[in-house]
Amino acid sequence: MTTVTDRVTLQQVADLAEVSVPTVSKVLNGHDDIAAETRQRIESAIAQTGYQRRHTSRRTGGLIDLVFGDLSPWSVDIIRGAEEAALHAGLRVAVSVAKNRGDIGQWINSVERGNTDGVILTLSDLSDAAWARLRKLKKQIVVIDPVGQPEAGIPSIGSSNWAGGMQATEHLLTLGHRRIATITGRIDTLCAQARLDGYRAALARAGVDADPALVAEGDFRFESALTSAGRLLELDDPPTAIIAASDVQAMGVYEAARRHGLRIPDDLSVVGFDDIPSAGWMAPPLTTVRQPLAEMASLAVKMLVAGNSADYNNRAELSTNLVVRASTASPR
Amino acid sequence: MTTVTDRVTLQQVADLAEVSVPTVSKVLNGHDDIAAETRQRIESAIAQTGYQRRHTSRRTGGLIDLVFGDLSPWSVDIIRGAEEAALHAGLRVAVSVAKNRGDIGQWINSVERGNTDGVILTLSDLSDAAWARLRKLKKQIVVIDPVGQPEAGIPSIGSSNWAGGMQATEHLLTLGHRRIATITGRIDTLCAQARLDGYRAALARAGVDADPALVAEGDFRFESALTSAGRLLELDDPPTAIIAASDVQAMGVYEAARRHGLRIPDDLSVVGFDDIPSAGWMAPPLTTVRQPLAEMASLAVKMLVAGNSADYNNRAELSTNLVVRASTASPR
Repeated sequence: MTTVTDRVTLQQVADLAEVSVPTVSKVLNGHDDIAAETRQRIESAIAQTGYQRRHTSRRTGGLIDLVFGDLSPWSVDIIRGAEEAALHAGLRVAVSVAKNRGDIGQWINSVERGNTDGVILTLSDLSDAAWARLRKLKKQIVVIDPVGQPEAGIPSIGSSNWAGGMQATEHLLTLGHRRIATITGRIDTLCAQARLDGYRAALARAGVDADPALVAEGDFRFESALTSAGRLLELDDPPTAIIAASDVQAMGVYEAARRHGLRIPDDLSVVGFDDIPSAGWMAPPLTTVRQPLAEMASLAVKMLVAGNSADYNNRAELSTNLVVRASTASPR
Repeated sequence: MTTVTDRVTLQQVADLAEVSVPTVSKVLNGHDDIAAETRQRIESAIAQTGYQRRHTSRRTGGLIDLVFGDLSPWSVDIIRGAEEAALHAGLRVAVSVAKNRGDIGQWINSVERGNTDGVILTLSDLSDAAWARLRKLKKQIVVIDPVGQPEAGIPSIGSSNWAGGMQATEHLLTLGHRRIATITGRIDTLCAQARLDGYRAALARAGVDADPALVAEGDFRFESALTSAGRLLELDDPPTAIIAASDVQAMGVYEAARRHGLRIPDDLSVVGFDDIPSAGWMAPPLTTVRQPLAEMASLAVKMLVAGNSADYNNRAELSTNLVVRASTASPR
């Protein structure tokens, strides 16, 4: 039996054969568009390193399972990133949506009857029973952006939510805003809590008092953001800027502003979070904190393909960055 | 050998066993949550009708391939509809994106090495070579909303684009608009041509002259819609309403209106097409022609599961309907 540390990875095979990891994957997956000489070098490296072919690959033609709790505009980039990385490795991506416990059970049934080369979960609030069944599959699992406490021993990939909350707030402070409100995500999720803490930290560093009246609890969705933003705009001393915990929430803030006859950014600055495709298509185009969703999904696939997800026994965190568009300006 | 007409379908098995098609699928796919008595009735119906189990199902655990030319907000509903129908039939959906001919080739490689229970294409401008390889797979294929001429003998599912173009135009005519502009989709696609023809037919029926200056050629995308809408709004006799060929194009019209200091719907009415999730989150929420994208995808899966896609030797067309929100009003 091999341990985690001496398990041979695709990367080691690739290094020895002096080719890229995708090229090794192609040989393992039976592609025929590899030069004979290259193929031989790779086969020889496989033999030398003792790399164990995953017995599942040929049976399914290579399949990575990508499981969502729900599909949203957010999902498009995740699917795109996973699919691109999988295609290069000669794999397909099976997308499943598990809205409830029954769906998760049915999906595990499908995997048990069929096969999978690895599982990417974008939800982590599974029941103990579901986790137990998942572990029994003895497949590699990677969690993307867990909304709850990550499961012990399951590697996860997130983005720097705390830094993102800070970047959004500092951008507004630099523009001269002092009455900066925020509408949070579901506050029982780690990412929402981290973004809120980043917001508070930026205010504290700038010596600006955090007014509790300017923090509205949300749930990442449009409707509650519309309601919360309406309430914020009706305060006696209303905010000059609102930070939303998602781009979809920012859409709710835009609609609340329109109903109050306020123009963005002249009368109100708005910052989103995620940078989903439609963020750049809003009127005006949204300043937002970009989460590298496609890159996160792509990294998850690469970890599964390389067979070294267990090396990341904690959490990989990719950095967020602020995309400045037209929804922010100095307060009047 | 059986012919198309005497091939036994899942529906026939279900009718004989007096159960639903998904229940038959569950038995075929080895689910264990079926009462013993029901299972026996279904097994007996399978034997009586001579229904041939697809030999692929157990090998892959049931897999439907869903192939896009590109992922867009539009894709989310397609994936949701396909996935829901597949989950009920105990199948998974493999999502692939083929942005170019090389990608299509790699995807066909994956399918050849692995397996599939059927293919749903949401693109149809494939090369002859790709069609030849696809046909050689001898798998059922269904095309959703082809952008070009459907391939002979391949069933396709679309929506009533001509009627949709007409519905959008009649809605604006009823509100009193006479200067109604449209920004088309890629005009070499059947759906864009049909929507434009529906627009012209509605104007003609109302006795309103179609002004060629009010038709701008587009490509379904944001940027060109932003440019075209800007030009339309600068005409000496500008339109009081603009019909976009997609919701994403409608977002471009919103931004052009904002840049011209026009308010929607007070100064300009806008109608979209598709009803993607974010249409209802625009400021103001968008009046649009709803395409039943999820239902189209769900029907495609059901045709593949029932094994009767060949019965639809032409085209199934689901109806569009107008969703009136807040972006349309009478002209001032």
